[in-house]
Amino acid sequence: MERWESVASANPILRFVDAVLRGFGQVMFQNSPITGLFFLAGLFVGGWEFGFYALFACVASTGTAYWLGVPQDAIGAGLYGYNGVLVGVALAFYLDDSWMLVPYVLLGAFAACIASAAIGNLLGTWQIPALTGPFVVTIWLFALGIYGFSQVEAGPNSQAPALPTLMESGRASLNFTNFYEGLFKGVSEVFFQNSIWVGIIFLIGIFLSSQIDTAMALLGSLIGLSAGWFLGVDQNSLALGLMGYNGVLTMIALAGLFYELDASSIIVAAIAVIVSVVVAIALTAFTAPYGAHIYTAPFVLTTYGFIAAKPFLHRLRAVAPADASTPEGEINLYRRVHWWAKKKG
Amino acid sequence: MERWESVASANPILRFVDAVLRGFGQVMFQNSPITGLFFLAGLFVGGWEFGFYALFACVASTGTAYWLGVPQDAIGAGLYGYNGVLVGVALAFYLDDSWMLVPYVLLGAFAACIASAAIGNLLGTWQIPALTGPFVVTIWLFALGIYGFSQVEAGPNSQAPALPTLMESGRASLNFTNFYEGLFKGVSEVFFQNSIWVGIIFLIGIFLSSQIDTAMALLGSLIGLSAGWFLGVDQNSLALGLMGYNGVLTMIALAGLFYELDASSIIVAAIAVIVSVVVAIALTAFTAPYGAHIYTAPFVLTTYGFIAAKPFLHRLRAVAPADASTPEGEINLYRRVHWWAKKKG
Amino acid sequence: MERWESVASANPILRFVDAVLRGFGQVMFQNSPITGLFFLAGLFVGGWEFGFYALFACVASTGTAYWLGVPQDAIGAGLYGYNGVLVGVALAFYLDDSWMLVPYVLLGAFAACIASAAIGNLLGTWQIPALTGPFVVTIWLFALGIYGFSQVEAGPNSQAPALPTLMESGRASLNFTNFYEGLFKGVSEVFFQNSIWVGIIFLIGIFLSSQIDTAMALLGSLIGLSAGWFLGVDQNSLALGLMGYNGVLTMIALAGLFYELDASSIIVAAIAVIVSVVVAIALTAFTAPYGAHIYTAPFVLTTYGFIAAKPFLHRLRAVAPADASTPEGEINLYRRVHWWAKKKG
Repeated sequence: MERWESVASANPILRFVDAVLRGFGQVMFQNSPITGLFFLAGLFVGGWEFGFYALFACVASTGTAYWLGVPQDAIGAGLYGYNGVLVGVALAFYLDDSWMLVPYVLLGAFAACIASAAIGNLLGTWQIPALTGPFVVTIWLFALGIYGFSQVEAGPNSQAPALPTLMESGRASLNFTNFYEGLFKGVSEVFFQNSIWVGIIFLIGIFLSSQIDTAMALLGSLIGLSAGWFLGVDQNSLALGLMGYNGVLTMIALAGLFYELDASSIIVAAIAVIVSVVVAIALTAFTAPYGAHIYTAPFVLTTYGFIAAKPFLHRLRAVAPADASTPEGEINLYRRVHWWAKKKG
Repeated sequence: MERWESVASANPILRFVDAVLRGFGQVMFQNSPITGLFFLAGLFVGGWEFGFYALFACVASTGTAYWLGVPQDAIGAGLYGYNGVLVGVALAFYLDDSWMLVPYVLLGAFAACIASAAIGNLLGTWQIPALTGPFVVTIWLFALGIYGFSQVEAGPNSQAPALPTLMESGRASLNFTNFYEGLFKGVSEVFFQNSIWVGIIFLIGIFLSSQIDTAMALLGSLIGLSAGWFLGVDQNSLALGLMGYNGVLTMIALAGLFYELDASSIIVAAIAVIVSVVVAIALTAFTAPYGAHIYTAPFVLTTYGFIAAKPFLHRLRAVAPADASTPEGEINLYRRVHWWAKKKG
Repeated sequence: MERWESVASANPILRFVDAVLRGFGQVMFQNSPITGLFFLAGLFVGGWEFGFYALFACVASTGTAYWLGVPQDAIGAGLYGYNGVLVGVALAFYLDDSWMLVPYVLLGAFAACIASAAIGNLLGTWQIPALTGPFVVTIWLFALGIYGFSQVEAGPNSQAPALPTLMESGRASLNFTNFYEGLFKGVSEVFFQNSIWVGIIFLIGIFLSSQIDTAMALLGSLIGLSAGWFLGVDQNSLALGLMGYNGVLTMIALAGLFYELDASSIIVAAIAVIVSVVVAIALTAFTAPYGAHIYTAPFVLTTYGFIAAKPFLHRLRAVAPADASTPEGEINLYRRVHWWAKKKG
């Protein structure tokens, strides 16, 4: 890895490739090209169109950022790629495949780049990271295009508009197969992939960058699934991991990344995951008249809230977005700071 | 009262009780345990479930704030309780009563605590108070749970989703009974209570803390009711006080609390109350596809707007949230400051 | 013009007339009373009610700002008039004409004034101009009044609530007449006017203040129309200029006003116009359950985003809202600054 970094930094093309791969990794907060490579591979396993449009959009968004003069360190860390990746995958997932998808994804990737800078600037005032908020804003706008553009057509995964309806009573009866399917699909659904194997490839990718985050990803999926079952979400959503993927991201973000890893941050993150399940159901109802597509909005809104609260939560040790790396890295940093403090003291 | 304060401050349990009671009082901006006690009593008069869940949620939200290390003075003033109070009452009002309501209200109270810190931090940038914004955000998310959770069921007060429909022409014909019912129920509806007597208990509670705010509460209810009648709101909504409760809160907030009491602030607050009636109707239409529940959102949005404008409104004397107490307290403060200025000058 | 300015500044009544006329001009960013006079004339050509209510609301909003003690330079530049102008026109366009429109427009103008101060304060934190955001917020609230106020009735231009529907396939076949109609109506629709002649009067008005902005207005309308056609918007919307008016405003705002005029800002603005077409379609779907009225929200949201991104877009030279005038003025300023820098250097 160190060898790649020295090679990549010396060559502008490899540096760009590195930035693009890190863009994939940043979808789950991993600033690592090798993790990004696994994520890209997982998408191609899920379907060629997911891999292709994700790569195309990530290149376009990252390239746009270069052209617009965005600071190099942010681009190099993949921060102008990950929202593009998700825009590419989501448009490929929800829209009908035609050649018009190419210019539409290109425009979406450009918009995601601007949205990244804009939301980064606005939320930077409070040291809140943009997360996948730029993706959510962009995809909510672009996916609604099917209602007004004849050249942008709804694909088979796009749902029809309807008013929300009440749930009938009774809890889902999850058997063991449903359960472990839901657990791993909770990881794959971060990229809209409905596959245990893709989920496992993603987990391996995370593992190569951070073992703690791998555990947090699984824990987040588990808590989301369990909370969804307890509150009475339908069986299909549970087995597809739809109550888990926001938990995966929320757990990684709050337990060890934007709050230092300790018992308190784990408890708070676990409760945040349960809240994200409520937010997911609420947003599904809210978006029902437009097809009930919620993307990663439950994670984004929940985590924005829990990070925005940080100046008043003195039990938790908040980490500024610029200092956030991995739980392992932050623990080491924390130890070093303490060692220095002791040596000085 | 002073005796209670010295006793309460010396004992951690009484201090917590004091904070919880002030949490009730803060629903109408009264940092007073005795006012809070009247509000709590009024809720029990309205129905045991309102008193119980309000108390439970206020304790949970205040307790969460202690555990998370929120600064003591904010907790002690009841600022981490009042949004919880309203979450408890509103969930008891709109959801079906079952044992699942207990964990659901608990989760809601936790979320309200985080939302209070988050919105307080964000709006603090502009010295805008959070008001009941954290409650509105939390309840909008949690009340929509009925559309996805089989274990969270809609109660008889929950309305069915529908597209908004145009109003037929003709003004409501309010007789004297409708009129005074609407006036006092405008006060009780701040806590979702449909009762003249509960409204009177609330008014007595306010009176023990601030006589001016009692007058403002009645004036706000009156202006809201009158504006609603003039613009042509249906008779039922008027008689239930549904055009008044946002006026009660808006009038207290703007005339004497976040703007010092004078002729200008009273006029501006009165117009704001009329605007809040328009906002109430707009939000009722906006939320029609989800059951048309608007809570105190009209007050929150209107008052956010009127306070956000303050740096440019030099006719009004704005009061920073940290300095806001009661109109009486602020008048005294203002006099003292002027007395000092004269003495020095 | 200089003679008028010296006369106007000496007489309080003429100063008010000047501020009101500049309020009209500011709808398209022209701080010029003569441009404003052309805009007002164009509205009267479109229909007496548009001219009348626009003037009434502009006077009311500007007068409210005086009364509330808003700084004179902002009022004098028409910044407390233009949102009122649009509130007046839009309410006259969408609501039924009755005497109740007078107090309703008056209340709307007051609300627009408060919204201008509030949004100006909030967005000022990031040096983002309010644009017509205060208008959009106000009109969204007030236009929904038809669903709850019997005395505020929907006019013939108001559309019925519905769930969004998918577009059928096939591109519109625009002939030459449709094309130039769409081009000029794109300019007139900024004020909800469906007329080539009104569009031309508006263009003459802009031309008297800034030739470059006139070109940008036409270019924005052209790009919006073309992008809408390419993506497959229906023929009627294209011919009415409904895909162009947001482009007119977006192009003026981004190419030469809030970003200095150069090749990069023109390209970025052109892409922003295309994005505004996507936003227009998305918001049309989003507001379908409420009648699908989007006003200038696509321009506002798109341009907020592209300006919020500015600290990270080093290729573009951002202009602070307080320094923004006309492309011509900014080019001169830029030259002078460079001349100074050279002289000093």
